[in-house]
Amino acid sequence: MQYRRMGQTGLKLSALSFGTWATFGVSVPRGTARDLIAASYDHGINFFDAAETYANGEAERMLGDVLIDLRLPRDALVISSKVFFGAVTDPRPTQHGLSRKHIRDACDQALQRLKLDYIDLYFCHRPDLDVPISEIVTSMNLLIQQGKILYWGTSEWPATLIREAAEFALAHGLEGPKVEQPQYSLLAREKVEQEFSELYPQYGIGTTVWSPLASGLLTGKYNDGIPADSRLAHEQYQWLQKPVLQNKAKRIAAVKGLSDEAAKLGATAAQLALAWCLGNPNVSTVILGATRIGQLEENLKALALLEKVDAGTRARIEALFA
Amino acid sequence: MQYRRMGQTGLKLSALSFGTWATFGVSVPRGTARDLIAASYDHGINFFDAAETYANGEAERMLGDVLIDLRLPRDALVISSKVFFGAVTDPRPTQHGLSRKHIRDACDQALQRLKLDYIDLYFCHRPDLDVPISEIVTSMNLLIQQGKILYWGTSEWPATLIREAAEFALAHGLEGPKVEQPQYSLLAREKVEQEFSELYPQYGIGTTVWSPLASGLLTGKYNDGIPADSRLAHEQYQWLQKPVLQNKAKRIAAVKGLSDEAAKLGATAAQLALAWCLGNPNVSTVILGATRIGQLEENLKALALLEKVDAGTRARIEALFA
Amino acid sequence: MQYRRMGQTGLKLSALSFGTWATFGVSVPRGTARDLIAASYDHGINFFDAAETYANGEAERMLGDVLIDLRLPRDALVISSKVFFGAVTDPRPTQHGLSRKHIRDACDQALQRLKLDYIDLYFCHRPDLDVPISEIVTSMNLLIQQGKILYWGTSEWPATLIREAAEFALAHGLEGPKVEQPQYSLLAREKVEQEFSELYPQYGIGTTVWSPLASGLLTGKYNDGIPADSRLAHEQYQWLQKPVLQNKAKRIAAVKGLSDEAAKLGATAAQLALAWCLGNPNVSTVILGATRIGQLEENLKALALLEKVDAGTRARIEALFA
Amino acid sequence: MQYRRMGQTGLKLSALSFGTWATFGVSVPRGTARDLIAASYDHGINFFDAAETYANGEAERMLGDVLIDLRLPRDALVISSKVFFGAVTDPRPTQHGLSRKHIRDACDQALQRLKLDYIDLYFCHRPDLDVPISEIVTSMNLLIQQGKILYWGTSEWPATLIREAAEFALAHGLEGPKVEQPQYSLLAREKVEQEFSELYPQYGIGTTVWSPLASGLLTGKYNDGIPADSRLAHEQYQWLQKPVLQNKAKRIAAVKGLSDEAAKLGATAAQLALAWCLGNPNVSTVILGATRIGQLEENLKALALLEKVDAGTRARIEALFA
Repeated sequence: MQYRRMGQTGLKLSALSFGTWATFGVSVPRGTARDLIAASYDHGINFFDAAETYANGEAERMLGDVLIDLRLPRDALVISSKVFFGAVTDPRPTQHGLSRKHIRDACDQALQRLKLDYIDLYFCHRPDLDVPISEIVTSMNLLIQQGKILYWGTSEWPATLIREAAEFALAHGLEGPKVEQPQYSLLAREKVEQEFSELYPQYGIGTTVWSPLASGLLTGKYNDGIPADSRLAHEQYQWLQKPVLQNKAKRIAAVKGLSDEAAKLGATAAQLALAWCLGNPNVSTVILGATRIGQLEENLKALALLEKVDAGTRARIEALFA
Repeated sequence: MQYRRMGQTGLKLSALSFGTWATFGVSVPRGTARDLIAASYDHGINFFDAAETYANGEAERMLGDVLIDLRLPRDALVISSKVFFGAVTDPRPTQHGLSRKHIRDACDQALQRLKLDYIDLYFCHRPDLDVPISEIVTSMNLLIQQGKILYWGTSEWPATLIREAAEFALAHGLEGPKVEQPQYSLLAREKVEQEFSELYPQYGIGTTVWSPLASGLLTGKYNDGIPADSRLAHEQYQWLQKPVLQNKAKRIAAVKGLSDEAAKLGATAAQLALAWCLGNPNVSTVILGATRIGQLEENLKALALLEKVDAGTRARIEALFA
Repeated sequence: MQYRRMGQTGLKLSALSFGTWATFGVSVPRGTARDLIAASYDHGINFFDAAETYANGEAERMLGDVLIDLRLPRDALVISSKVFFGAVTDPRPTQHGLSRKHIRDACDQALQRLKLDYIDLYFCHRPDLDVPISEIVTSMNLLIQQGKILYWGTSEWPATLIREAAEFALAHGLEGPKVEQPQYSLLAREKVEQEFSELYPQYGIGTTVWSPLASGLLTGKYNDGIPADSRLAHEQYQWLQKPVLQNKAKRIAAVKGLSDEAAKLGATAAQLALAWCLGNPNVSTVILGATRIGQLEENLKALALLEKVDAGTRARIEALFA
Repeated sequence: MQYRRMGQTGLKLSALSFGTWATFGVSVPRGTARDLIAASYDHGINFFDAAETYANGEAERMLGDVLIDLRLPRDALVISSKVFFGAVTDPRPTQHGLSRKHIRDACDQALQRLKLDYIDLYFCHRPDLDVPISEIVTSMNLLIQQGKILYWGTSEWPATLIREAAEFALAHGLEGPKVEQPQYSLLAREKVEQEFSELYPQYGIGTTVWSPLASGLLTGKYNDGIPADSRLAHEQYQWLQKPVLQNKAKRIAAVKGLSDEAAKLGATAAQLALAWCLGNPNVSTVILGATRIGQLEENLKALALLEKVDAGTRARIEALFA
């Protein structure tokens, strides 16, 4: 495994990491969950990503249970959670968002579900324009001071708001956001590559990117339509169909080109898509979703592939998706 | 239910809320208290107001008991307490006021009576000119840092003192007051509308207003004298008679006019008086007192009435009480 | 009882208060200790003064035991302790002084001996020139932030050092010293009246004065020599003989004059000496030592005497001790 | 025993102190460990030095066990630990270094192994250029605020980095490093005497020096080769051979000269080498390693020797090692 500093912090994340979104507490039984976490750990993955809203709290609960089962050393694990959406299906006004109240309640509840003393990375899962930046930054700092979290960050925030938070923190001697969790793939490059470009040098922010395979599109599995057992076929994730499958014909053509490039390197489209993400030095870690060990191990090969992806290959595959 | 941000904070309060003053621990049995809190919650009320001095601590104790009975989710509830008067009938010098000592003792005791881990809103119930503003602000901030309260505010403070506290906090990187609890009704408009007008934009302060019906006068129940079973008839509340019933004849004439306006809208004088309060955008929530479910539900209809109260109606009823 | 603000803080101390020095853990049995504390409380005394070094920790232990016996309300009591001398007879280098280490250890141990959650007033019992002011001030602030103490102060410090601590605190947004415990009596006026005169208005410092009767000299009990059962006769307190009995003849003449002035007001020399202390508005409280209820009650009469002590009387008795 | 302030702090360390490195958890049985600590304490030693990495955590565990056995008063002991190398033989990326994560985990684990409530001195065992100074300083300050440590320092850091940490702390109102643990002996003088010379007056930093006998070379025990039972013969410490035994012939000649000087004073080479270290006023304490009581007691005699080492002797022995 390769390890990268999370931005300019001292925390080192495995370049590939494990996400519980849309799998833990949903479709993955506890035994499989345990095997997936064990295999991840054995392959050197150290970052396990969760959120209060994933499976309405069940992802955290399952992750916490499995960590106890496996007796992995706490200090070898980077565990995240996220606050914003709440962990109840029909939340009341104080049960979501980024008010000091929900930040406190959500963190206490995540610690209980995860059965941990502290959370390594605590993300504001979305921006909340109904809460002043000062309230968000000071509330996150209270959690740090009280020992409940180590670092805080944002997910899917616009650069302007991250900058505002970082500047407020600097001006008041507080801890600013140290990590952002954006979507990033060959199909979604703008945020990570353009919008955030000034944040990296100025505030030392790292990124833990999600959906590197664009909900599976980049694996080629939608090349011949939406399989009945795929995520996009699920009622719950149909909202993903539109962003993922817009310009469907053009995209699928590009995916086929990607497969051809991958084949030249003896790899799959998915592996090449992951390796391409890893090629961006501002990416601290690429979060993998997996429901099977085999799938996980296939994806982990992206790391070895990385050194074979030269500038020419990068240019050609980027041209495919331009 | 409608929800409003408490000033410029991230906390969202139900526009109508439930006060325990003069009812819990006094005249309301525990069963009724439980039914009132349950009905309030079912109607979307999320803010429940208490104070160390209400029924000498018994209001908090009853509220705490009932919250346990009902197993309502803590994160859906905004619970307040207030420090100043003490919770003993003949307090010694350190058992009231806003010294660091009483602030600490009162908060610890309120948490015990309420059986909670933290209080959402903690109010300085009156100003205390014997305590420097610096001591009050830093003591409230200690409670925030120690996780015992989330936000602090004031009740019945003059604007000048709120401003002083807010400026001290800003100058020292501390949390300033975020909410004031003033009296507000057609008969008591000056503080909320005039005195505090600059505080809202400058410091983002919200208001949780009490006595919106002027101790019942605006319901019309004193139109024909003071009923034997009414609050004003109670020995304990006779101090309210003078402010409520000054200019009695003129006021009762106005209340009758209010009833007429209400009738035009198919509502009661009480509902219209509440709706008028809600019409002020600087009011974060209007605290209702109730001893019976029926009374509570009648008052809750004020919210639906609000949209029917046009500018003309507002002008006419304000003229009645001018 | 009269109550006075401790300097410009919000804490109100009884003008006369109870000290455990040289009595608790030494000569007073637990039953008497309980009666003394009970009588003090009944007479309105709210401040009980202790220190780690008094009877090598036994004074705190006895005070803590008695407070539990009496079930007095914690929020009605102001309890102090002091750090410097250590609580062991032959302390090692880290077991005394004002290093961060001893401040922490001493406070934790005092809380254990007193069986309390927090100490109201925590004094640096002497200056310690081997410790930088920054270390003392930040260590005291750590205790405040951790909820172990409410206010901190000094005892027998020179004004220059108090000023240095207060300025360091102001410059760094920390809590400065709020109270000094100096010796003060007709025989020891310089510190309270001259040396500290600028500290009161500038830093709002209060004083809790000790030895108002100059180890008993002002009661007249040494007029005819040192009684065998008096404190000065004790081997342990012979160091007091020199400062107390210097210029013995002149002093005893003055004490006789004081007795004459007291007689005119129907009081004793001791009562007048105490009333004279109380006449200084910069004195927050006068600490009484007592081993018998009768003695305590006699001394408490000084408060009623205060209003009879006019400017002329003050001038005459001050002239006696000039 | 002589005691010295640790730099300009208020903490007083015994001039000679006890290190657990390379002995506790390695070759010393628990009974001997207990006897060594007891003898050290009886001779007035108050500082006991440990680190997470010493014997992979076993040194701390043994020290903690022995402190419990001996029931020594906690407030008479200065206990250190160090964070950097981790306490596992093959640490993962988050299990070593100076990230906020490892600082927290290492401190919690050291407290558990030592079975203490707090650590007196917590050292950053090496610099970590992968962690920004701001993260190191704020993480150490979190431990101070949370009451887990009292002072923090560095070990084997370059002066430039210590200065950077101290300046960051000053600029942000935080606690800077107060102590450095460098190697210091007649064979390693540059850091303590030259490189750090400006740090002492500017930041008040103390030093707790280690390896004052250059891994035994200065005792003369390697004069005739490496004895089979000596540390340098151990496989584990062979890395020490090169630095210790470079210029072997010249060094051994110097050691013989040192023995001659020592003999003139009725002392051993080891005692004179220790006394020479103690002669530097910027040395707060010299850490002794010992596996036998006799060895410890021999070394403790260096303190009495100190006053016999005049300027001429110093000059001559320094010339030997020039």
